[in-house]
Amino acid sequence: MSESKGRVLLAYSGGLDTSCILAWLIEQGYEVIAFMADVGQEEDFEAARKKALAVGAKKFFLEDLKREFVTELIYPALQANCIYENVYLLGTSLARPIIARGMMSVAEREGCDFVSHGCTGKGNDQVRFELAFYGLKPDIKVIAPWRIPAEFYHRFAGRQALLAYAAEKKIPVQQTAAKPWSTDENLFHISYEAGILEDPDTTPPADMWKLTTDPEQAPETPQRISIEFAAGLPVKVTVPDENKVYTDGVEIFLALNALARKHGIGRIDIVENRFIGVKSRGCYESPGATILRAAHVDLEGLTLDRNVRSLRDQFVTIELSRILYNGHWFTPEREFVVSSIPASQKTVNGVVRLKLYKGNVIIEGRSSDEGLYDEKESSMDELGGFEPTDTTGFIAIESIRIKKWAQANIRKGRVTV
Amino acid sequence: MSESKGRVLLAYSGGLDTSCILAWLIEQGYEVIAFMADVGQEEDFEAARKKALAVGAKKFFLEDLKREFVTELIYPALQANCIYENVYLLGTSLARPIIARGMMSVAEREGCDFVSHGCTGKGNDQVRFELAFYGLKPDIKVIAPWRIPAEFYHRFAGRQALLAYAAEKKIPVQQTAAKPWSTDENLFHISYEAGILEDPDTTPPADMWKLTTDPEQAPETPQRISIEFAAGLPVKVTVPDENKVYTDGVEIFLALNALARKHGIGRIDIVENRFIGVKSRGCYESPGATILRAAHVDLEGLTLDRNVRSLRDQFVTIELSRILYNGHWFTPEREFVVSSIPASQKTVNGVVRLKLYKGNVIIEGRSSDEGLYDEKESSMDELGGFEPTDTTGFIAIESIRIKKWAQANIRKGRVTV
Amino acid sequence: MSESKGRVLLAYSGGLDTSCILAWLIEQGYEVIAFMADVGQEEDFEAARKKALAVGAKKFFLEDLKREFVTELIYPALQANCIYENVYLLGTSLARPIIARGMMSVAEREGCDFVSHGCTGKGNDQVRFELAFYGLKPDIKVIAPWRIPAEFYHRFAGRQALLAYAAEKKIPVQQTAAKPWSTDENLFHISYEAGILEDPDTTPPADMWKLTTDPEQAPETPQRISIEFAAGLPVKVTVPDENKVYTDGVEIFLALNALARKHGIGRIDIVENRFIGVKSRGCYESPGATILRAAHVDLEGLTLDRNVRSLRDQFVTIELSRILYNGHWFTPEREFVVSSIPASQKTVNGVVRLKLYKGNVIIEGRSSDEGLYDEKESSMDELGGFEPTDTTGFIAIESIRIKKWAQANIRKGRVTV
Amino acid sequence: MSESKGRVLLAYSGGLDTSCILAWLIEQGYEVIAFMADVGQEEDFEAARKKALAVGAKKFFLEDLKREFVTELIYPALQANCIYENVYLLGTSLARPIIARGMMSVAEREGCDFVSHGCTGKGNDQVRFELAFYGLKPDIKVIAPWRIPAEFYHRFAGRQALLAYAAEKKIPVQQTAAKPWSTDENLFHISYEAGILEDPDTTPPADMWKLTTDPEQAPETPQRISIEFAAGLPVKVTVPDENKVYTDGVEIFLALNALARKHGIGRIDIVENRFIGVKSRGCYESPGATILRAAHVDLEGLTLDRNVRSLRDQFVTIELSRILYNGHWFTPEREFVVSSIPASQKTVNGVVRLKLYKGNVIIEGRSSDEGLYDEKESSMDELGGFEPTDTTGFIAIESIRIKKWAQANIRKGRVTV
Repeated sequence: MSESKGRVLLAYSGGLDTSCILAWLIEQGYEVIAFMADVGQEEDFEAARKKALAVGAKKFFLEDLKREFVTELIYPALQANCIYENVYLLGTSLARPIIARGMMSVAEREGCDFVSHGCTGKGNDQVRFELAFYGLKPDIKVIAPWRIPAEFYHRFAGRQALLAYAAEKKIPVQQTAAKPWSTDENLFHISYEAGILEDPDTTPPADMWKLTTDPEQAPETPQRISIEFAAGLPVKVTVPDENKVYTDGVEIFLALNALARKHGIGRIDIVENRFIGVKSRGCYESPGATILRAAHVDLEGLTLDRNVRSLRDQFVTIELSRILYNGHWFTPEREFVVSSIPASQKTVNGVVRLKLYKGNVIIEGRSSDEGLYDEKESSMDELGGFEPTDTTGFIAIESIRIKKWAQANIRKGRVTV
Repeated sequence: MSESKGRVLLAYSGGLDTSCILAWLIEQGYEVIAFMADVGQEEDFEAARKKALAVGAKKFFLEDLKREFVTELIYPALQANCIYENVYLLGTSLARPIIARGMMSVAEREGCDFVSHGCTGKGNDQVRFELAFYGLKPDIKVIAPWRIPAEFYHRFAGRQALLAYAAEKKIPVQQTAAKPWSTDENLFHISYEAGILEDPDTTPPADMWKLTTDPEQAPETPQRISIEFAAGLPVKVTVPDENKVYTDGVEIFLALNALARKHGIGRIDIVENRFIGVKSRGCYESPGATILRAAHVDLEGLTLDRNVRSLRDQFVTIELSRILYNGHWFTPEREFVVSSIPASQKTVNGVVRLKLYKGNVIIEGRSSDEGLYDEKESSMDELGGFEPTDTTGFIAIESIRIKKWAQANIRKGRVTV
Repeated sequence: MSESKGRVLLAYSGGLDTSCILAWLIEQGYEVIAFMADVGQEEDFEAARKKALAVGAKKFFLEDLKREFVTELIYPALQANCIYENVYLLGTSLARPIIARGMMSVAEREGCDFVSHGCTGKGNDQVRFELAFYGLKPDIKVIAPWRIPAEFYHRFAGRQALLAYAAEKKIPVQQTAAKPWSTDENLFHISYEAGILEDPDTTPPADMWKLTTDPEQAPETPQRISIEFAAGLPVKVTVPDENKVYTDGVEIFLALNALARKHGIGRIDIVENRFIGVKSRGCYESPGATILRAAHVDLEGLTLDRNVRSLRDQFVTIELSRILYNGHWFTPEREFVVSSIPASQKTVNGVVRLKLYKGNVIIEGRSSDEGLYDEKESSMDELGGFEPTDTTGFIAIESIRIKKWAQANIRKGRVTV
Repeated sequence: MSESKGRVLLAYSGGLDTSCILAWLIEQGYEVIAFMADVGQEEDFEAARKKALAVGAKKFFLEDLKREFVTELIYPALQANCIYENVYLLGTSLARPIIARGMMSVAEREGCDFVSHGCTGKGNDQVRFELAFYGLKPDIKVIAPWRIPAEFYHRFAGRQALLAYAAEKKIPVQQTAAKPWSTDENLFHISYEAGILEDPDTTPPADMWKLTTDPEQAPETPQRISIEFAAGLPVKVTVPDENKVYTDGVEIFLALNALARKHGIGRIDIVENRFIGVKSRGCYESPGATILRAAHVDLEGLTLDRNVRSLRDQFVTIELSRILYNGHWFTPEREFVVSSIPASQKTVNGVVRLKLYKGNVIIEGRSSDEGLYDEKESSMDELGGFEPTDTTGFIAIESIRIKKWAQANIRKGRVTV
């Protein structure tokens, strides 16, 4: 009997693809351990466990990573107002480092030299997973079947070939018709892409959206809540009309998810630029995160120094969003950029009051004891803080270089429009 | 009889403040010409003209600057997706350079050595106006009464003193009670600040909002429109259910304003950082601009190269927004930044389909013949453009430096979290 | 007789590698046209022509690209003060787009479907060439023998295998011993890398440096020159002690090269980060460019507005340098970034006086009629331009937000160090 | 007898200006305490003490701030490669926060409500000092006599008026003729500005330069040294030919100063942009800092990840340099930016070997045990780390978006140059 080629930890989903990959890896002579991460997706983990073992996995690990997902990835991204290409809140990107770290931890413990996944060869996730693996365990070897032409990619071109292989390997296949798009779900969001969505001019069907109520079907009556932040992190959510208060980090996030889902908040539909340079159409629902981001951005208006905000927006927000999207979490540049977040959030303390209504997150007020906002100082009606003549001096100084340039334009006959 | 101290061009609004300033300037020995710009605000210009002449203005000029406001300021800002501190679309900032240029043109023609305005000593507008004046006409002299302590500021402290002076000078005063906030309006937006809004935790009263329907009162039925862009500029707006098509730049903007107003689109409420470093609370309605920005950002997803978008976002969007906010339009840095816009918009051609509903601008689809998006290439279901093994190479190369860093961490015992 | 697989345009150098590639391509069934670019390197082009034809090339093209190299690549990079990782002036990077464009033009004319080159699989040049090819002619097919494992890479592993193949194919081989490093030369610079230089702690041997005199051997007597710029470009170089004046763009560059070489100016020795993420040690001599950059940077001090300079430094200089280094010249981001250069150089007019001495470029003075510098205004000894009280106002306004922050620190007990 | 107006802490230099200010403050009714900081300048502190007390100061404080100047300001700036407008190493800027903090500490201890200085109304130092005061002690009141028109500025216009006042107040005046420029000196550098230097085309006279040997007079024989860095900070300087090793932070800096001075290293002559927008000509000698910066930049090539370097250059280097120059050290943005430095310097460990020769700092080699540089991987001569086919994949992926753009250009007839 031939010896094993080695032990592989497989990122297992319970679906057709990774079940076939599991069987195929065994066929190729590997010993396979199946891995699942619970990052809040709706999933029958027990069924998946049984299936993996039935197909031939030596072991099955289910890791509950929800809390670290919220506290170690989602909250720093929130503190930095992360957003990709103006609209995407990075829900899939945020989960990948957590899952990859969970896998490397099991791979280490179980002595796996290899790791495998079912990502296709065109997407972002293969890159995000593999770069995260290498950043944590640079000697790990990756088996990406969908990028192995002869043995896998061409052999299993098309769903029929996979189904035939599943039948051959006695892999149970769900009878439900596949949806004409694919999804990725976790407690932060769900994504929809591929299939009928590949035509960017096709409006997503109403029944595609899974996490949020259609704004048109959302309640006619607005609901008011307040969120308290400490150092830029949500520490208390109050929902007066439900008589509820949440203070635990994970519970806060889940409560905001529930509220946002009810009010149809957090849907987007975009064409984005994948890391590999291909444009791709994606639809996303990020309910709770949409509320949290709006509230955090608003509170920063009241409590964050102008120059810190401006530098943070131009560097941390943009760069950390790119780092997340491109799967560069376990890199020195992530450590570098993230290290500046605490200093930017010291003063971001206070409460934001919000109204939720049919897709809208409406800010109704905010307060803080930081004192960076000073009613008297900003008031047009009274003096406070500085003299009007100070502004005359300020403008005089600010105009020095502008006047010089304007004089040069006039002398040189250069026209300013 | 004493000689005139010189000729002043006064930015006149028809209100109490600038009418008193008009009278006061005459009292100080100046000859005053009143100037009004029509930038789309709701205003009785004829009444203002009569009042100015009645108070003693030698001449009155009303300049219709709406078209240049839209085409020379609003549209470049739109092409660059300008936004200040994540939320403010810069409606007041955009109008100032146009008004200032109109004034300098009249000042030149009428031989005015001085220019005057009614801006307070704490706001942004004094800075925006004066820096614009100096950038166009560096030898102009500015009289800013609200920053002249003895002769004006202290003399007219409080509204009563102004009313008394108005009575003395026979300046007609509107009997309507002053609103407990102040506003600035033009065809792009209206702003509300000061008064009761100075407490950032006070929710603006429902009857404050003037330009847009309350989302809760907006139509129950969504409305669909499409906007066609050429080189990043809107060139056609189609409103099927009204059987309307708009192709003129100004008409497009006004039509979008009407649609957005109806559907409660474009309200914001923020605490922002003024140029002088004071935090200030402002509420704004920017109806049409909110739709246009959403559509433009979306079309860029489909048609703009990833790297151009990213560089443009990090530099042009942020810097031009700051330039606009701080009143630095007539400066070399504005010329520099704006000169890069056309190259960024070459490929931004196509159509965006939108649904307007109770405060929401929902993208329903977009199309373009630019071809930067390629269904086959992004499809997970078929090959196209590149081989899956290419991505293996890409990831291998991308991981080189990450592995080196991870190996150093391991060797040096540095922990990566 | 078998049909040709197609026509290949080969970037030919006359050396062993590309001669063997030429023979090998013919052996593989291609028809080969040899291409050489004269970008100012020291080379026996006629010998190369004979050799290429002797080995079997159907045709040989030598394109003189020196002028466009200087005017279309070097000068924009100079205007933008391009520099990679603080020290490298990008000499090789600058030549690549020019050569690639020359090749695509010949490929188009001669109906070549393929293009080939002798770059190794680890360097920057393969990337720079190929991305430039694709940016100009996206349907071109590239044959990169050093990245074809079975047929080429493994077959010709090591110099002996190549020499044997050369002997077999009757390719004449130069008897001179190969230097223990490799070089790339053009009129801008020469680079040295690989071989003994791969140990970054090995000091380059004195006889390696080819273009410049060792500073220790350079003249004891300094030499003074002046450079006049118009819109940021050098338009006149005056060398008083040689009684010489240069006004032609190419001649100016060559004259500065000669001066810098004599005075030992422009050597660097660095470890840089290649585009593929590998660190690499390189030594470079960029004589004339070093003088020009120092003079241009200095003149910008006198003539460029502060804010334009700052934005240009942070945006154009850094991004264009990266674009050049990574071979992204024929991309939309290059068009975007370069489009902003003219607006940044309008006022960069004037003369810089320099002293050249043993490796040093010493600025001795500069002048301009732009007037952005104003002796009176900057003088500590006299008034001019603004009142001292204006600065009091400026500081008062600048301190508003700082005081607020300091007060919050005190109130909250946060320590500032 | 009238009561004191309060207690003033005066930044005293021992010179004519601040001695007159001292007398004038007393004349105005203040009680004055004189403060001097020893930041390494050449100065007769004892004579200054006697003079201050003779003129009427109640107390005199001399604070030795050299160590904190080096470790708290100079070294972070070195780690971040700070440089202003490409050339200026910020010597004056770096000392200001240290001096201001020393003053605020004495002001607190001695119960001074006021602080005063002799800075003119046109320079950077007034801004730097005052913003630093406010950032530390927001309720401090500043008396800046050179910005008080009636009582001081106009009264003492011109040196004669000051001399007369000195005579009247029996202030001893040095008989030595004033130099035709002014200087600011500390252990980092000396600056020269004003006077004959105000003409930017005037070459500074040879006898102006005080800290460094003229390169033309520097030794004919080069000297070799090595600098070891740990986490980006110099921890050991070895001078073999002097048989010297330095390991203390301050001693390292002073030793490098001595070496650089001897070899004529660190002179610059520039026109810079002051914070107030005025252009100003300055000459500087920053001997040791010039060596240290060159060595640090070089070592980062070997030891710092490419992406960290690039982000740090674009963000920290540029922003911290501006923060320093503009006197924004005690601000939230400085805390924010500086907080990211440690993460950027973790791997900057190793040794740089240098040759010093007539104004040149020549890198001769560098080494590190970090391992981010890998000879095998970068070698053109052998495989290592990745396969040549990986690069083929990398280029294929990198070219995806470029080809799309090029195809669009061709289809649309847009010309790429």
